[in-house]
Amino acid sequence: MKDGNGRMQAAVLYSPRDLRYEEVPLPAPGPDEVLVKITTNGLCGSDIHFYKEGKLGPFLVDRPYIPGHEACGVVVREAATPGGPRAGTRVAVEPGIPCRRCALCKSGRYNLCRDVVFMSAPPINGTFAQFAAVAADFAHPLPQSVDEESGAFIEPVSVGVQACTRAGLRAAASIAVIGAGPIGLVTMLVARAFGASTAYLVDRLPSRLALGSRLGATAVIDASTTDPAARVAELTEGAGVDFVFDASGSSAACASAPALATRGGSVTIIGWPEKSVFPYPVESIIEKELDVHGTNRYANAFPRAIALLASGKLDVHPLVSHRYTLNKVTEAFAFAADHPAETIKVMVRSE
Amino acid sequence: MKDGNGRMQAAVLYSPRDLRYEEVPLPAPGPDEVLVKITTNGLCGSDIHFYKEGKLGPFLVDRPYIPGHEACGVVVREAATPGGPRAGTRVAVEPGIPCRRCALCKSGRYNLCRDVVFMSAPPINGTFAQFAAVAADFAHPLPQSVDEESGAFIEPVSVGVQACTRAGLRAAASIAVIGAGPIGLVTMLVARAFGASTAYLVDRLPSRLALGSRLGATAVIDASTTDPAARVAELTEGAGVDFVFDASGSSAACASAPALATRGGSVTIIGWPEKSVFPYPVESIIEKELDVHGTNRYANAFPRAIALLASGKLDVHPLVSHRYTLNKVTEAFAFAADHPAETIKVMVRSE
Amino acid sequence: MKDGNGRMQAAVLYSPRDLRYEEVPLPAPGPDEVLVKITTNGLCGSDIHFYKEGKLGPFLVDRPYIPGHEACGVVVREAATPGGPRAGTRVAVEPGIPCRRCALCKSGRYNLCRDVVFMSAPPINGTFAQFAAVAADFAHPLPQSVDEESGAFIEPVSVGVQACTRAGLRAAASIAVIGAGPIGLVTMLVARAFGASTAYLVDRLPSRLALGSRLGATAVIDASTTDPAARVAELTEGAGVDFVFDASGSSAACASAPALATRGGSVTIIGWPEKSVFPYPVESIIEKELDVHGTNRYANAFPRAIALLASGKLDVHPLVSHRYTLNKVTEAFAFAADHPAETIKVMVRSE
Amino acid sequence: MKDGNGRMQAAVLYSPRDLRYEEVPLPAPGPDEVLVKITTNGLCGSDIHFYKEGKLGPFLVDRPYIPGHEACGVVVREAATPGGPRAGTRVAVEPGIPCRRCALCKSGRYNLCRDVVFMSAPPINGTFAQFAAVAADFAHPLPQSVDEESGAFIEPVSVGVQACTRAGLRAAASIAVIGAGPIGLVTMLVARAFGASTAYLVDRLPSRLALGSRLGATAVIDASTTDPAARVAELTEGAGVDFVFDASGSSAACASAPALATRGGSVTIIGWPEKSVFPYPVESIIEKELDVHGTNRYANAFPRAIALLASGKLDVHPLVSHRYTLNKVTEAFAFAADHPAETIKVMVRSE
Repeated sequence: MKDGNGRMQAAVLYSPRDLRYEEVPLPAPGPDEVLVKITTNGLCGSDIHFYKEGKLGPFLVDRPYIPGHEACGVVVREAATPGGPRAGTRVAVEPGIPCRRCALCKSGRYNLCRDVVFMSAPPINGTFAQFAAVAADFAHPLPQSVDEESGAFIEPVSVGVQACTRAGLRAAASIAVIGAGPIGLVTMLVARAFGASTAYLVDRLPSRLALGSRLGATAVIDASTTDPAARVAELTEGAGVDFVFDASGSSAACASAPALATRGGSVTIIGWPEKSVFPYPVESIIEKELDVHGTNRYANAFPRAIALLASGKLDVHPLVSHRYTLNKVTEAFAFAADHPAETIKVMVRSE
Repeated sequence: MKDGNGRMQAAVLYSPRDLRYEEVPLPAPGPDEVLVKITTNGLCGSDIHFYKEGKLGPFLVDRPYIPGHEACGVVVREAATPGGPRAGTRVAVEPGIPCRRCALCKSGRYNLCRDVVFMSAPPINGTFAQFAAVAADFAHPLPQSVDEESGAFIEPVSVGVQACTRAGLRAAASIAVIGAGPIGLVTMLVARAFGASTAYLVDRLPSRLALGSRLGATAVIDASTTDPAARVAELTEGAGVDFVFDASGSSAACASAPALATRGGSVTIIGWPEKSVFPYPVESIIEKELDVHGTNRYANAFPRAIALLASGKLDVHPLVSHRYTLNKVTEAFAFAADHPAETIKVMVRSE
Repeated sequence: MKDGNGRMQAAVLYSPRDLRYEEVPLPAPGPDEVLVKITTNGLCGSDIHFYKEGKLGPFLVDRPYIPGHEACGVVVREAATPGGPRAGTRVAVEPGIPCRRCALCKSGRYNLCRDVVFMSAPPINGTFAQFAAVAADFAHPLPQSVDEESGAFIEPVSVGVQACTRAGLRAAASIAVIGAGPIGLVTMLVARAFGASTAYLVDRLPSRLALGSRLGATAVIDASTTDPAARVAELTEGAGVDFVFDASGSSAACASAPALATRGGSVTIIGWPEKSVFPYPVESIIEKELDVHGTNRYANAFPRAIALLASGKLDVHPLVSHRYTLNKVTEAFAFAADHPAETIKVMVRSE
Repeated sequence: MKDGNGRMQAAVLYSPRDLRYEEVPLPAPGPDEVLVKITTNGLCGSDIHFYKEGKLGPFLVDRPYIPGHEACGVVVREAATPGGPRAGTRVAVEPGIPCRRCALCKSGRYNLCRDVVFMSAPPINGTFAQFAAVAADFAHPLPQSVDEESGAFIEPVSVGVQACTRAGLRAAASIAVIGAGPIGLVTMLVARAFGASTAYLVDRLPSRLALGSRLGATAVIDASTTDPAARVAELTEGAGVDFVFDASGSSAACASAPALATRGGSVTIIGWPEKSVFPYPVESIIEKELDVHGTNRYANAFPRAIALLASGKLDVHPLVSHRYTLNKVTEAFAFAADHPAETIKVMVRSE
């Protein structure tokens, strides 16, 4: 993404807690890119992580960049190469652009491409701005029935779609989701849309569990007071659930997941545990012949996430806990950083 | 199923159109069987076929037998072998008992067992009776949330579950169902429960298409006035749908199915076409790299059908077009045989 | 592929039977393309078809073009874009270049891309020339252990890899291949490399069946004297084989395939039958719950074909029936066109 | 297995190191069982474990029992129930008999049945005897081309078949096997038969690595001197292998497996690590989107193992390191217990 002619307003992170809403050059789309006027951004936990810590995994905020990768908007300039969305098309922005040429890209797993360029992973600019240049085929048209906030949710819903797809989730199955943050809750909703007939939700925050109940959890389990494995066993006549999803980000919770699974079941890990290496019950994997699936972002998930939202199979609006406008984006970041337990999803709307 | 001590009332088919509601010996359960007091039966098209024609495929009505295989009831005598449902348990009856010992049984495809014994396939007795003896593990417990009529629907819903499973149906996919009879409609409902986001329904009877619309079809196509392939192409921007299901029983309709599928899509055939061999567009299978899946009854589908109904993912009550009591069972058969276009599902309830 | 500076020799097909070996412009590689000095070409049946008929399916020889798409060579000019094979690298040429941007490309099924550009499908030039420009990532490096003729066989071996992959071929399975032409024989060899433990081969030409026996068929069946279904039943104790492959190009043979499959088995169609629509035993698909898989070229198969050949899992040399040099290419085409029964694979080597 | 009329010789383990070759009652086959005259037994590591320790996992030697579960023999008495192997049929003995009625059995994963009865898991008698009673459908006919020692190897080969099947091993893939004991070596051979084109073998014993080389490993890695992950990276241009199998029984080695896998690859765990819970690199599972598969014995693998051996796809004879006759069975156990590094597979032949 090069600089184009013209200027726009954007949120620029300079260093931890130093986020500025300021004027920057308009991006200059390449021949295969469209220019998108961003209308809505969701605030992701990773944005907040960079905001608070200045780093995440291998990525380091060592120069100013624009955060944000949960966005939708409207195409305002078409790509030079034909075939992409026309001007005026509402689109969701898929933020990771792969090389398209390696064996992983060509076999459909482009999320694992070693050369993927991911918007908002510093120093690559993201979407907390008035405009963004996006590869034409990664700007996914939104039908009328998907509103702006749902459009900004396509990215996290795609994380859930990837998790349920990697899990091989079957309709009529029972599931347990560990972690009732935005990703855990979205995964539960997506799993329901995939046909899961029973869904247990595990967390330690009563407010999140209450939200989970409202969103349709069959039962919720407060891990601060109840042993999840024992409770799941009780709820399933000793069997355990068919599919466990770990979206907790906690190494201890991640290690507890196999105990919740039934024989022949599976565990899908979405959240990155806070430690890389930690004690894990491998024997349980063997004895019950479990499958453990890692998931890393998504591939080919955006169109499916859009189809699910467009057909009314899930409703993400109850997850929006706070709303800001783009000119208050610094307040939005500060609030989310300081109130992790209160915020589920913060939405930032360009006026 | 041997005769036991005692008598019961049952519908006995002697020859075409000669169905008698009469007293017969109570069945005597084997050591692995439970005795089920049948509460509700659904009338299947194959029952009607035997009623009208006296034969179907390799099966011939050459001596009196009891039809019926869409039934639920209550266990009134437990199996001698422990582990099965207890007396008082409401159960759905899975009617095909396999050998459990051949390679197909042991690998999970017991519906293909060469030695399967199928209730109501003459001369094996079925469920239009006050009682039936059922292998304990083929008497599937029903939760409270599944009422009697839904319980009698578990069998046809299992046909839909098998079809969607064989198809490898993915959530967020588009589907087309050819044939809006009971199986086609149930398959559409099951596909929705599996997460299909778009569902087109094709038939030639406006009344059935109207019911399909009420049941949630995205669009219905009257094949008597509209070319289904052209209409599906129009609805999908030329692409076709991801999954086609043929439940028409018509050879011409079955041959039309591949034209509705997108590149890389699939066609699943549920209904037995009226001819065995007929012109079929194999080139389309090759060019679009389609998968064509045959389905033959179901394996491991009853528990999943029950879970879907129990969790409210589908509602089959709108499919019940007529209701009878068991002592009027001969009237039920006669009506269904004479009014094929008007009847969707006829339910027969034991008082 | 544009014209570059310089000239080269090539085989140019003007119209049926009018193939000329003449000087043409050197192709000019684009920035993502390498220039490959072609060392060996295999003659494909489709090349011969165009040579004899001037058309095939939707493709028409309405202006001069270069045939050939089973080729290997050496990179003589690297791509401007980095990452591709270096000069001097021996490569096999994958001839179908997809758009890389549509949903089919991004999900790994790029062979189904609606915008694929296929070398040697008129009017696109192919490889019967001294040089060809090839997308850098479709020029697949060959290890030392793969000689030139094997390199020219990577393309047809990839057809077999695609077929076995689409079939979901399991090791230790039994297979039957209908059609003992080059593709049928290669598919049998690939299936063996995939672990098929029993392989039956069906054809009507005794010479081809004899070659099949030498290549390791468990048994061969002469369909001109023996009913294949009856013979396969006899060989498999009535069961049929797990996987049937039809590479016959005959509609009648294609329609006979389901009868050879066991319950729960599959039929994979590789050869395009001479008719588009023909009587097909759909009932058998349903009764035995078969899967029918179409295959259309290949995706992600070249690296696997190379790995199989490099590791010695199959030996394609016995399939080479005739050898020519490029300056005798017109003789090679004429011979193959006039002696279909005698030729298995004709190899054309550049001096 | 009840006692029948008559007596036979058997190896009976009373307590650690107290194995006696003595006369015991002949087993009395049930109506669904055949009586098999055992001809050859392989000595499994678990037999040795019970011999040395008197316990393994949940199993305890608290009364005398007959060890052994890698056996073949000849049917000498047919089952009362028809359909099983006839007298005189050579058979391999599948030692774990499931309930056939639970959801796991009916869906094809009978190895996970909670009620499986496993021969040689104390107190259930095994096959180190002159005769054994075996469920008729778990006595798998051996073709002529499978000799006695290969027949006794069907059980460990089935472990390899299960591992490769659970892994979803694709032909033309690269693999690494950690642990060059009997199971690791057999798994490598089976993976080769499944079409793996490259196979790396990791161990700490040079003698076992040397045997691995003779058996066809592409490269062997001595983990006592070389970092396996670094060496695999070097051998694969940084990518890692497609499929990793851990058959080491070492927790540290098991934890090292994910580092050997390529992005999108998998790790299959066969050997039970000596600890239940140990530090495991879950982050690597996520980042590379790996699949981790547990395996527990086998289901539906015996017929496939037999087909592979019958067709010559693998040769297990080089794994036989020592041979005894049944009357020297106590010496066989003692030798294997005292010389773990020297023994690969000890075969015990009934005269």
